[in-house]
Amino acid sequence: MSLSSPQVHVEAAPLAAAFSLSPPSARRFLLELDLPMRHAGLRRVRVRGEWRGPADAPWVVVAGGISAGCKLASDERGEGWWPAQVGPGRAVDTARRRVLAIDWIGADGCLDQPIDPADQADALAVVLDRLEAGRVAAFVGASYGAMVGLQFAARHGDRLDRLVAISGAHRPHPYASAWRALQRQVVALGREEGQVSRALSLARQWAMLSYRTPEEFAARFDSPAVLDGQRARVAAEDYLTHCGQRYAARWCSTAFLRLSESIDLQQLDPGAITVPTTVVAVAEDRLVPLSDLQALVEALGGPARLRVLRSPFGHDAFLKEGPAITRILRDSLEVPA
Amino acid sequence: MSLSSPQVHVEAAPLAAAFSLSPPSARRFLLELDLPMRHAGLRRVRVRGEWRGPADAPWVVVAGGISAGCKLASDERGEGWWPAQVGPGRAVDTARRRVLAIDWIGADGCLDQPIDPADQADALAVVLDRLEAGRVAAFVGASYGAMVGLQFAARHGDRLDRLVAISGAHRPHPYASAWRALQRQVVALGREEGQVSRALSLARQWAMLSYRTPEEFAARFDSPAVLDGQRARVAAEDYLTHCGQRYAARWCSTAFLRLSESIDLQQLDPGAITVPTTVVAVAEDRLVPLSDLQALVEALGGPARLRVLRSPFGHDAFLKEGPAITRILRDSLEVPA
Repeated sequence: MSLSSPQVHVEAAPLAAAFSLSPPSARRFLLELDLPMRHAGLRRVRVRGEWRGPADAPWVVVAGGISAGCKLASDERGEGWWPAQVGPGRAVDTARRRVLAIDWIGADGCLDQPIDPADQADALAVVLDRLEAGRVAAFVGASYGAMVGLQFAARHGDRLDRLVAISGAHRPHPYASAWRALQRQVVALGREEGQVSRALSLARQWAMLSYRTPEEFAARFDSPAVLDGQRARVAAEDYLTHCGQRYAARWCSTAFLRLSESIDLQQLDPGAITVPTTVVAVAEDRLVPLSDLQALVEALGGPARLRVLRSPFGHDAFLKEGPAITRILRDSLEVPA
Repeated sequence: MSLSSPQVHVEAAPLAAAFSLSPPSARRFLLELDLPMRHAGLRRVRVRGEWRGPADAPWVVVAGGISAGCKLASDERGEGWWPAQVGPGRAVDTARRRVLAIDWIGADGCLDQPIDPADQADALAVVLDRLEAGRVAAFVGASYGAMVGLQFAARHGDRLDRLVAISGAHRPHPYASAWRALQRQVVALGREEGQVSRALSLARQWAMLSYRTPEEFAARFDSPAVLDGQRARVAAEDYLTHCGQRYAARWCSTAFLRLSESIDLQQLDPGAITVPTTVVAVAEDRLVPLSDLQALVEALGGPARLRVLRSPFGHDAFLKEGPAITRILRDSLEVPA
């Protein structure tokens, strides 16, 4: 692999521990691209990412939600967002695949423009070119990553062998869009009043409600409120506050606003996708209803199948239902020898 | 009926139009009560309400959501909140029943204290005493009104013949409580920053999402967002903004905070209720799940039955599914001659 362009910076990774199943060290990169964006016009964007796996293995792209980045597996620097699925011997096997992931365009908060999921797909295609990756054996996307995967399959399907799209559709559901629009309005209010962190925390808490389900809350939390001074405090508040504050400490409001908005800009004709596709739906998902994923599968232009899970974790099932997701990924990614 | 107490003010209503089905004029009252409240101690509260119907007819109490007041039917002064169900010849028949309703304690924003649904039930009992109403033929409550109806049946069941509880339970669901707690946090942020009206509007919009369903939004709203200047605007935003602003123009934040909180203070042993009870559940309700109402019916201490509706209007079905609600009310309220 050659990375001789002056726009490309490659950071050496520390050596991995030397035992047989140790993950190949991650190769990290930071690329600058001039990207023709659907709504924002031609923009110079930075794309940070990493890949790991044998240098001659087939490429697999993995992409997650708007707050997931290029760290997939557990590694020497800490936890990635999908350690149950990505690593040596895992369903996305870094011992046999070159597994690529990026931080989303906009995640650094430097691009305050409308970002289309198609822009992310195009950026990934440029990144693959720069890495001299020709074909991509599989694109595995979950949530926003599934939306981007569908865009990649529609726009760059000639270099893609198969797609797995988990809990992400060809359109945002109007109710879920309303839910996100209100989150953005909370953040807008906080920005105007110098309360960004508090508003961002609140927006994240609203998002958490959409990622999870009443079934999970009923099992985890008691219903009686307790009077805390002069006001009632309900059982889930401490948990949600913790989630919100942790998010607000790590994310800036511009990144949140533009990536949340990006979900709502998804527009795609499933008929344009001819790549073999596995769509994974979760019956309890409150953001991406099963009915939308059924419609997607029926409208896809190539071989398609639908796998339906039941999970009290709703939209977050891809993060929480490890074994079930592993089975689906193995089924979908294994190529007969 | 005698209303001679100096704490009682009776306002004469204008004459109703003189044709046979014209509703009997409303008798309006404003009472001051010294109410021993569950969390707030003894408080002097004002209760505004009205009743209409023949002076010798059996009493029926009707109670709705936290933003519903004592205006039930359409009358000469404008629209009530339940004109499809209350009026001469309607399921709650003002030609044959004395139909009583109040504005909730706290709705005037003057009581900035924790208000328990049991407090509302006790206030209603005092109001009935002041009106020299002995027995109550039926309590028909929907949403928060159903919670209060359950409290009334548990605490004053000796004077109640039957209860109809629509979309309200013996406990708040932990997920719905979290949803409301976040609404209150949005309002708290707005109050601190001098943005009360905007925050109240936002909170109401979040509430609207909980009152309705994805099915309704999918039928009413398109999914693609449009770019409005530099940001995306999703299809339901105009509708929700309208709902929010209309609410914020009529309600104060203290009333909202205390009545929203009151829902979360609901705690009740259904076994204490021996009054014959009809519980009405809506399968799509996102605030009061069918499972909680099934548990309620199974735990009630007296004759109980469950009626289940399906409706794309979810929690708001009691306002939107006129004929189906009418059938249930007629079944439940008709006493054999």
